[in-house]
Amino acid sequence: MKVNIIGSGNVAFHLLKAFRDAGLEDVYSVEPHSLQGLHTDSDVSLIAVSDATIPEVIAHLPEMKGIVAHTSGSTPLSVFEESGIRNFGVFYPMQTFSKSKPLDYKKIPFYVEGSDKEAAQTLFILASLISPIVRYADSLQRRALHIAAVLSCNFVNHLWTLSSLFLKENGLDFADFLPLIEETLDKVKTLSPKESQTGPAVRGDMNIVHSHLDLLNDKPHIKEIYRLLSESIYNIHHNHE
Amino acid sequence: MKVNIIGSGNVAFHLLKAFRDAGLEDVYSVEPHSLQGLHTDSDVSLIAVSDATIPEVIAHLPEMKGIVAHTSGSTPLSVFEESGIRNFGVFYPMQTFSKSKPLDYKKIPFYVEGSDKEAAQTLFILASLISPIVRYADSLQRRALHIAAVLSCNFVNHLWTLSSLFLKENGLDFADFLPLIEETLDKVKTLSPKESQTGPAVRGDMNIVHSHLDLLNDKPHIKEIYRLLSESIYNIHHNHE
Repeated sequence: MKVNIIGSGNVAFHLLKAFRDAGLEDVYSVEPHSLQGLHTDSDVSLIAVSDATIPEVIAHLPEMKGIVAHTSGSTPLSVFEESGIRNFGVFYPMQTFSKSKPLDYKKIPFYVEGSDKEAAQTLFILASLISPIVRYADSLQRRALHIAAVLSCNFVNHLWTLSSLFLKENGLDFADFLPLIEETLDKVKTLSPKESQTGPAVRGDMNIVHSHLDLLNDKPHIKEIYRLLSESIYNIHHNHE
Repeated sequence: MKVNIIGSGNVAFHLLKAFRDAGLEDVYSVEPHSLQGLHTDSDVSLIAVSDATIPEVIAHLPEMKGIVAHTSGSTPLSVFEESGIRNFGVFYPMQTFSKSKPLDYKKIPFYVEGSDKEAAQTLFILASLISPIVRYADSLQRRALHIAAVLSCNFVNHLWTLSSLFLKENGLDFADFLPLIEETLDKVKTLSPKESQTGPAVRGDMNIVHSHLDLLNDKPHIKEIYRLLSESIYNIHHNHE
């Protein structure tokens, strides 16, 4: 299979490496502005650029023999409509990419969608070269994935940020929390997160909840988050939703 | 060292096991209501019962030779005041304990506090038998730890719960997110959580934030959390606190 990877960012960098590691020889790195290096006879061209730049790249592509797919979790398939491209799709690796860190590609789930069944299957096969976890997902499902990723990762990381700043102010070290956090993550590998829930709010221990809220009086910003999430835990677990 | 462990719950169970694994021979399991099994000549007696029950256990203790300490993260040292106990303290293992899961005790940080320096040092040495991570922390710091644990673990787990329910409704599987979450956790082992932050809110990508909020219109409960946490990320990273 011949593959163009259009882009110069983290996703492009890692996809290029992953395909080469998987033994794919005809993988071409394509500069996204000039399209230098583009092979119009490639079976698949992956547009791995920022969401905002995708329409631009699509608009400037010459006629392509194969499938053109973007790699964005938050851009619908319809971005290819009226582009004149016949075979198109989405090839979304769900992972946070940074150039400096090696990734275990075998753990990255890929979500693919195609303009037709054949396109979807080709993208599925291509993703399977890199990862054993490949799923078909339509644009709506991909949006749900993105929202869930924001909740599960971005917001989670932010709670760690708030903790680390709060601990530092109290002469304590966030690093001490890593084992506790690892244990929390380990639990959801065997139990569902709902079953794994611990803490004052799920126990309905309102004494602790209120004493924490009182202690956060000079941190209205954290206090509001504490209040809302405790309420949410209580509601989800005591069926008052 | 002779040690009483007063309690029949998860913390008592794991402490008993950890001390025995560490080669401590004179560790006694004490029934919390009858105090059956109590050795009044023990060097340390650890009260590992629910927060609400601690005062009761303290009130019923006979005169003890050694140090009496509770194991609660959220109970102040002052619970021992007016108890007549001369040497007391806190011996707080910061971890979520469940009986069914083996724990790596070497990864659990212990926070100790004593009625005097000697009591604190004895508790420090005792904790050092189990874990290499032992810190002195006063009652205020311990309250900060507890709040940070709620933020870093309980609330984090709840965000995973909300994600898993949302994914399920969309025909998707939370298990696919575990690698992404692991990667998120791996990052904060080398970078600070603040430096590790990714996602639409930190990028200031308000198009994505607003499109997600729109998609969550029929989920007001998740929408409110999404709004508040996105705002908090934006504020923390763009210095508008």
